[in-house]
Amino acid sequence: VQSAVEYIRQHTQDHLKWTTDLCRIPSISTKPEHKEDVRRAVQWTRDLCERVGLSARVMETGGHPLVFAELCQAPGAPTYLVYGHVDVQPTGDLSLWEAGPFEPVVRDGWLICRGSSDDKGQVLLYLRAAEAWLRTEKKLPVNLKLLIEGEEEIGSPNLAPFIEKHRDLLRCDAILISDTGLLEDGLPTITCGTRGLVYKEIRLSGPRNDLHSGTHGGAVANPALMLARLLASMHDENNRVTIPGFYDQVAELTPEQRKDMAAAELDEKKYAAELGVTELWEGERGYSAAQRRSIRPTCEINGIFGGYMGEGANTIIPARAGAKVSLRLVPNQPAAEISRRFDETVRQRCPKSVRVEILTHGPAVDAYVTPPTMREMQAARQALKETFGREPAMIREGGSLPILPMFKRVLGADSLMLGFASPSCNAHGPNEKVLLADLDRGAETITRLFGYLGS
Amino acid sequence: VQSAVEYIRQHTQDHLKWTTDLCRIPSISTKPEHKEDVRRAVQWTRDLCERVGLSARVMETGGHPLVFAELCQAPGAPTYLVYGHVDVQPTGDLSLWEAGPFEPVVRDGWLICRGSSDDKGQVLLYLRAAEAWLRTEKKLPVNLKLLIEGEEEIGSPNLAPFIEKHRDLLRCDAILISDTGLLEDGLPTITCGTRGLVYKEIRLSGPRNDLHSGTHGGAVANPALMLARLLASMHDENNRVTIPGFYDQVAELTPEQRKDMAAAELDEKKYAAELGVTELWEGERGYSAAQRRSIRPTCEINGIFGGYMGEGANTIIPARAGAKVSLRLVPNQPAAEISRRFDETVRQRCPKSVRVEILTHGPAVDAYVTPPTMREMQAARQALKETFGREPAMIREGGSLPILPMFKRVLGADSLMLGFASPSCNAHGPNEKVLLADLDRGAETITRLFGYLGS
Repeated sequence: VQSAVEYIRQHTQDHLKWTTDLCRIPSISTKPEHKEDVRRAVQWTRDLCERVGLSARVMETGGHPLVFAELCQAPGAPTYLVYGHVDVQPTGDLSLWEAGPFEPVVRDGWLICRGSSDDKGQVLLYLRAAEAWLRTEKKLPVNLKLLIEGEEEIGSPNLAPFIEKHRDLLRCDAILISDTGLLEDGLPTITCGTRGLVYKEIRLSGPRNDLHSGTHGGAVANPALMLARLLASMHDENNRVTIPGFYDQVAELTPEQRKDMAAAELDEKKYAAELGVTELWEGERGYSAAQRRSIRPTCEINGIFGGYMGEGANTIIPARAGAKVSLRLVPNQPAAEISRRFDETVRQRCPKSVRVEILTHGPAVDAYVTPPTMREMQAARQALKETFGREPAMIREGGSLPILPMFKRVLGADSLMLGFASPSCNAHGPNEKVLLADLDRGAETITRLFGYLGS
Repeated sequence: VQSAVEYIRQHTQDHLKWTTDLCRIPSISTKPEHKEDVRRAVQWTRDLCERVGLSARVMETGGHPLVFAELCQAPGAPTYLVYGHVDVQPTGDLSLWEAGPFEPVVRDGWLICRGSSDDKGQVLLYLRAAEAWLRTEKKLPVNLKLLIEGEEEIGSPNLAPFIEKHRDLLRCDAILISDTGLLEDGLPTITCGTRGLVYKEIRLSGPRNDLHSGTHGGAVANPALMLARLLASMHDENNRVTIPGFYDQVAELTPEQRKDMAAAELDEKKYAAELGVTELWEGERGYSAAQRRSIRPTCEINGIFGGYMGEGANTIIPARAGAKVSLRLVPNQPAAEISRRFDETVRQRCPKSVRVEILTHGPAVDAYVTPPTMREMQAARQALKETFGREPAMIREGGSLPILPMFKRVLGADSLMLGFASPSCNAHGPNEKVLLADLDRGAETITRLFGYLGS
């Protein structure tokens, strides 16, 4: 393994070029006008897999295509399926970016561009490790499969049927994923679970047109006001979500999980300073910030819009107002049922003087927890410790990975999540970035992990 | 007077061309990029005044310029100051307009374009009447002054100092204004009062950047949620505004005003159908829709914005969220004090986990009521009745005219409001329009009114 690790260290510049080349492709899966860019990113990944020495092909789904690659020439060794994605989130307000989101810039050791940490930069770590083994040892110590998709950021709507259809092709002992982050800079981290997700758009409509707010104000229901009331009603005075039955099935922590959680508590002042807020939210009563963002469910407004948004004044009653709302769920909360209850609750609370339409974006995703007893967990702890020189933190992630419960259900395989993105990487926001040293440590970790898993 | 009225009837096409020429100028006073267009509209109006036979000049203010015109050659007759404006509201969403907002179209007897009813079309009625008298009788029966400004839609911020400075130039017995509407199509209407206005923009900011709503959701205050709560808190369960002391000084109606109000009640079903809503808002408990939109104060959301507003999903906690909020006030409510109380209330209710900024757009405007005993009121009722063949309705308008309390204060003159815009004119919204027959009746009414006032 040492020569493979050496190979990683000697090829950081070549590997940086892989990342910047891939990040230049604006593969925004949520935007129809970027459809061909997602395909280009998938094709680019296939080509790289082949150059590294895997057999690879682009495969079609009902939506964006994906790439499948494999090199299974280690009889008797276990088989691992690496999962990742090369699609990215929209850029948001371009004026907030220092450079173009798809023009990678390196500054002070950071690579800044959309996809640098989520997830293009991290997907490529597995190909760096595979290349290192193949160029130095001429073989891989494990059987390796890769499934790199192009619609994670829209909730992987076509992945479940694909996996069901290709169950044999994808058969494996466990899944390896790097799509998460470090708890703190320099602190190696294993993510032991993710929250579920339900994403809604509420659209209220009132009068046929925007109306003069003087002439008609007071007589006609204002959709923006009705929306504000509806959104304000989603939490009670303890900041608990008011959807009936929302907390009924929430799993309580085991003593072991409680210990891991306690070890991963946040320095709340430092965290607030990093995010640029004077103080954190009080949030759900009875829980710390670290708990509220990982093991407790939430209801967030992701966007809100209606009426006049320009400069100065326009005295109108808006004809329409809307909001994007997402629910993050925790183990045992049934996402599909909670999605239905959200719709019922919104419809019930909406006054008759406005019309309501509810859109659901992406599938309802359940939460997931990695079993603490998993064999690969021990190997990963060891590989991380050797590479970073520190004992890894075991955390629960607040974000969602729809594919984890799906892999469990269809392939019967659990997932190991090794993430290398900095807490300040600003995934999904402007100036997304990754520390190049973290990518290098990630590649070394995975190179070592392959060795442990094969021995 | 009959030959002047005949002149109006014979020149409708020439006069329509005046209106369409003026409406082609995109004189949006709220948008800096249209500054020169506002000046062009003012210059165009000066040129027309001169062609009609008045002496006219463009005069500068601290903001957009205005035009002053006069013809005072009727010794012993009273002097009237016509007030109007040739600036317009922004267009809003262009896709909602059937044709360009500044490309006037005539369809089924309606003139459709921005400014057609508010207020370019109505300003020109006075020049039609003046031309009719001058071409037929070679003189006006009254002394006439015109003050046509270019910043009404931003709350006339420079008009008060202008009027104070030019008090003598503007001296008059009363003000004549056509910037209001008909209560119903075909029903002549005198507007006896307007509501006051305070216009605010609330801006909340939280984290430095938009954040991943999974990673951070639950820990950090969401500015869009805090905004929704703040806006929802502005009314109580009876839909009364919760700013402390808001209702303390609200004037109760006199028996006479109560009678006028009762005569002007709305057919609520018909009104709802016109606006395109299933039912009206219940609104402030204890008042009819007609009352709520005219003699009762309100708090409206004019716009709301924050976070992701595009297609599909983006899972962020927005860094910022904001809203435009306007308060409509009724007689005796002190606008400046209520403006201060609004700010205090918002600051007090805003949690410390977000930062709040409050902008005030335009001045705080008091409500205004025309004295029922005013001599010009009788003349106007007679002129309207002769022209429309019906007894006019006496109504209170929900909109605001900042200049009314200002004229009263500085010039000591009361204002007579004769409006000819249809209830379906959609002023401030898309496809603003005016019925050409209403403009013709308006011109005839004013021609007759000049005759009565001079005799």
